[in-house]
This record gives sequence, C-alpha cells and structure tokens, in this order.
Amino acid sequence: MAEEASEGSRIWRIVLDVLKPHDPSLPEFAEKLGAMEGVEGVDVALLEIDKETETLKITVDGELDYSKIRSKIEEWGGVVHSVDEVVVGQKSIR
Amino acid sequence: MAEEASEGSRIWRIVLDVLKPHDPSLPEFAEKLGAMEGVEGVDVALLEIDKETETLKITVDGELDYSKIRSKIEEWGGVVHSVDEVVVGQKSIR
Amino acid sequence: MAEEASEGSRIWRIVLDVLKPHDPSLPEFAEKLGAMEGVEGVDVALLEIDKETETLKITVDGELDYSKIRSKIEEWGGVVHSVDEVVVGQKSIR
Amino acid sequence: MAEEASEGSRIWRIVLDVLKPHDPSLPEFAEKLGAMEGVEGVDVALLEIDKETETLKITVDGELDYSKIRSKIEEWGGVVHSVDEVVVGQKSIR
Amino acid sequence: MAEEASEGSRIWRIVLDVLKPHDPSLPEFAEKLGAMEGVEGVDVALLEIDKETETLKITVDGELDYSKIRSKIEEWGGVVHSVDEVVVGQKSIR
Amino acid sequence: MAEEASEGSRIWRIVLDVLKPHDPSLPEFAEKLGAMEGVEGVDVALLEIDKETETLKITVDGELDYSKIRSKIEEWGGVVHSVDEVVVGQKSIR
Amino acid sequence: MAEEASEGSRIWRIVLDVLKPHDPSLPEFAEKLGAMEGVEGVDVALLEIDKETETLKITVDGELDYSKIRSKIEEWGGVVHSVDEVVVGQKSIR
Repeated sequence: MAEEASEGSRIWRIVLDVLKPHDPSLPEFAEKLGAMEGVEGVDVALLEIDKETETLKITVDGELDYSKIRSKIEEWGGVVHSVDEVVVGQKSIR
Repeated sequence: MAEEASEGSRIWRIVLDVLKPHDPSLPEFAEKLGAMEGVEGVDVALLEIDKETETLKITVDGELDYSKIRSKIEEWGGVVHSVDEVVVGQKSIR
Repeated sequence: MAEEASEGSRIWRIVLDVLKPHDPSLPEFAEKLGAMEGVEGVDVALLEIDKETETLKITVDGELDYSKIRSKIEEWGGVVHSVDEVVVGQKSIR
Repeated sequence: MAEEASEGSRIWRIVLDVLKPHDPSLPEFAEKLGAMEGVEGVDVALLEIDKETETLKITVDGELDYSKIRSKIEEWGGVVHSVDEVVVGQKSIR
Repeated sequence: MAEEASEGSRIWRIVLDVLKPHDPSLPEFAEKLGAMEGVEGVDVALLEIDKETETLKITVDGELDYSKIRSKIEEWGGVVHSVDEVVVGQKSIR
Repeated sequence: MAEEASEGSRIWRIVLDVLKPHDPSLPEFAEKLGAMEGVEGVDVALLEIDKETETLKITVDGELDYSKIRSKIEEWGGVVHSVDEVVVGQKSIR
Repeated sequence: MAEEASEGSRIWRIVLDVLKPHDPSLPEFAEKLGAMEGVEGVDVALLEIDKETETLKITVDGELDYSKIRSKIEEWGGVVHSVDEVVVGQKSIR
C-alpha cells in the first residue's frame, strides 16, 4: 500500500468499528474474517445491538491488507465506521 | 459454517448473554454445556436474578460450533439474548 | 449430575452468596467447607455483617459436587442466596 | 477447630478488622503477631487513626489457629471487629 | 540532535498527538511511518474523528530522530499538536 | 522489640507518613535513610508541599528497627504522623 | 551527598515536576538528560502545555546525582517545581 514500504514492515493489527445487519450472524461474520488469507486471529465484540443492526468492535491480527479486509466486510453487508487502531512495523509493539 | 473456512481456522471462544428459567439450576446448566463435544471449558456467571428467570454471562472455550451450542441452550429452556464476543482464527489472540 | 457428562468434565469452581447466623463463626464455617471431600481450597469473604447474620461470598475450588456443598451449608445453618459463578470443563478456563 | 477437618486442610490466611489503643504501637503489635507460632507473615495496615484508638486491617499468613490469634489480640488490648476473609484448604487458592 | 549525546544514548519511543486530514487514510499513514528508517514499530490510535480531520495518538518505537519524523508527518499533511512523551537513554525504562 | 520475637521473625517493610521542613531536601532525606544500617531500599514520594513543610510517604525495605528509623527522622527535623503499614514475618507476604 | 552514605547506597530513580519554555523542544530536552553521566534512562511526559511554557513529568533512572541534574535543567532554562519521588538504596525496591 505505502509505496516506500521497507522490507519487513507490515500491518500486525487493525481495530475496526463496524456496523452490520443481523444477517450474517456475529459468529458467521467472525468465521468469514478468520478464514481470510493473512488473518491469524479475530476477536469480534458486540458494542450495541439494535432492531436491524449491530455495532461491532473487530480486532484482526495477522499479516494484514486493510483494503482487502474492508472490501470483504462491505461485500458481507457491513460498513466500516472508523479505523480505531493500526499497529505497524518490523515487530509488534503491543 | 463459513463455506470458505481455511484449514485450521476455528472458533476458540464464544461469550453469550442468556436468559433461562431457574430450572435446570445454574450448576446443572454449566455441567451440561461442559459435557458437549468440542467444549473444553465453561464459565457461567450470574448477572441478574429474577422471580422466574436468571440472566447469565456464559463463556465457552474449545473448538466450537455456535449453532450446536445455541440449539442445546434452547433445548434446555434458555434463550440467547446476544452473542457478545467471538474469537476466531488459527490461534487465539486473547 | 448432568447425565451426559463426558469423561473428564467436572466443576472446578463454584462462587456462592450465602447468608448465615454468627454461629458457627466465619473461620469455623470456612474450615468445615475446606474439610469436605473433593474440596481443595476455600475463600470466604465477609460482604455484610448484621446484628444476627453475615452475608458471605464463598469461593470453592476442587472437584466439586454442588448439591453436596449446598446440603452441608444448610446443615450448618446457612442459606444459599445465589450461585454467582460456576466453572466447568476438562480444564479450568480461569 | 472443625471436628471433621481432613488431613492437610488448614487455614492459610486470615484478614481481620481490629481496633486497638495507641499502645502498643502498630510496629510492636505487628511484631508480636509475627512472633506467634504458625504465623509466617503479617501485614498490618492503618485504616483510621483516632485520638485514642487505631483501626487496623491485619492480614496473617501461615498455618493458622484463629482462636489463638484472637486471644492474643485481646490480650494486647485489641478488639476484633470482624473477620473479613479466611482462606482454607489443602492448598492456597489465592 | 543533542550535541553532547553520549555513545549509546538514543530516543526509544516518541508519543505524538497529531491532526491529519482523512486522506491518506489511517492505515496508510501508519504504514508510511512504519516504513521509515529507524522505525521498528508504530501504533496509531484514533482519538477523535471530525468531518474533515482525525486526531491521532501515534506511538513510535525504534532508534528515532524526532525532526525527521515530524518532517514526514507534515509532508503527508499532518500537524504535530504536541509531543506527549519521549523515552531516551542507554536502555528503555518502560 | 517484641520480647517473644521468634528466631527469624523480622520487620520487612515500614510505610510512614512524615512531615518535614524543606531542608534537608527530599533527595538528601532519602539518601540519609538509604544509608542507615539494615535499610536495603527507600522510596520517598511527595504527597503535599507547603510554604514551609513537605508531607512524604516513605516506604522502607530491609531488616528494620522502627525505633531507630523514627529517631533518625526526628534528628533530621521530621515528624512521623502515622505508621501506615508494617510487614513482619519469616518471609515477606507482599 | 549524605555524609554517612554507606557503601553501595545510591539514588536509582528521581521523578521531577519541571516547567520549561518551548525551546529547547521536549525531545531535545529529553536527549540532553539522557546524555548525562550516570543517567541510564529518561522518560519525559508532557503534563500541560501553555502559550509560553510546558510542564513536564521527568523520570530519570541510573546512578544519579540530584544536584547535577537540577543544575543542568536550570542551565537549559527549566525550573524544578518539585521532586515528586526518589528511590534510594542498595537495590531498587520498585
């Protein structure tokens, strides 16, 4: 993504605030994310539930490509409200 | 569940908000969950107690199938109010 | 207790909210619990003290049978107000 | 103390709320407790200080006999207001 | 930077409060920082989001040169509101 | 101090609330305490500063004799307001 | 500094509340401190920022001489508002 990306620099973690309809269900949504290439772990927490939608805090770990993750979330009916945290570098600092 | 699930991706943890009648008792309910195939550990915490019902926070760890867990809970008289957290991936990120 | 209990699934921890008269004293009550078969550790904390009664938070660890614990507590003059947490499984998830 | 105490079950920790006059001083009081048979460690924290008295939170660790500890505290001029926590068992669960 | 810098003394961590327009996106911004020479890890957290701008808390770890980091942030359209923390020395004290 | 002190029982930590004039300075005061026999470590934290005095929270670790510590503090112009915590025993329980 | 300082007793950590003008910048200020003899690590955190000044919480680790640190801070235009904590002894108790 970044043109001057050095050897070995990568995104390790992305935390997203996402709105989605009830279908697919939260566990299905999490499993779909977990099955993506480069994704090693996913934690999906429910922040708010409404008659028609759910607001989720999604934490994705792995060797990540944000634009692909965002595309998939939109393909499954979700909307990324905000990117709340990104961890980048040669090694994780968390 | 997710059709494109990659080799090795699985649900490690599910946290549920469940309403149930007093019978079966909380310890019996926990034991039944603990005896399910794929379940390695269960923590059932009482959130609210009412004249006729109890609201529980149930944390299940293992190699999990959410639809089977939900079916069993309903079979035992419980209702899943919400799925509060799901952890998925090749390895646990908690 | 649970008829379909799998090999190796057991209750590891029970947290109880208990009301008891001043006699037996809190340390005697704790010692009696600690001496029960299957009980490995007990933590009894005083939540409230009244003219005639004490409210206790009792945490019991071991290989536990809730109905036996409850019977004993009642035999010693206590009343189980609520079961606040139960941890079950092949291994502890706490 | 408990007649049915099993082999190996013992009190590991007692937490007390104690009122005492200024004399003996807090350090002397702590040293006296620390010198009792079966006591391995003592932490005495000052909760409140008054013109004539001090309220202490006393945590005693070891292989403990509550009635002896209470007798000694009374002998030194203190009063046990309440037993706030007792940890019992074959092994400590703290 | 400091003329009398001793052998081995260096900046290990800088925490910045930065304002930036929505473009480049937060993940791109983080990747650009992570690709800089001397930078080993970057954590970019979103503090506030506005119609036209985002306020970020940026934590950079590595062997750092603050003036270069500041120049790059300005080159990418950001403004450093404040330097909130700097860790310096022969070894990290965090 | 305690006449019946058993072999091996000792004071490991004393926490004091102390009032002192500005001179000697807090670092000098801390160094003087740290240089006393039996003292292994000292942490002096400033709680309040006034025109003429400072209130300190002093934590002393080692093999301690409270009466000697108190005498020295008074010799250097300080007053012990209260002994806030004493840890005693064969081994530290902190 | 303390005349009766025993062999091996030293200051391990000093925490200061310092006011300084904007120039030198916080990172330069931190680097200067980090380059001093005996200083092993420095953490400079911004507490307040004003039109003309910054209030800093400075934590210095190493084998420290407070009077030298204070002189240098004053030489660079800063004022020590208060010494908030000093850790002294044969070994660190933090």
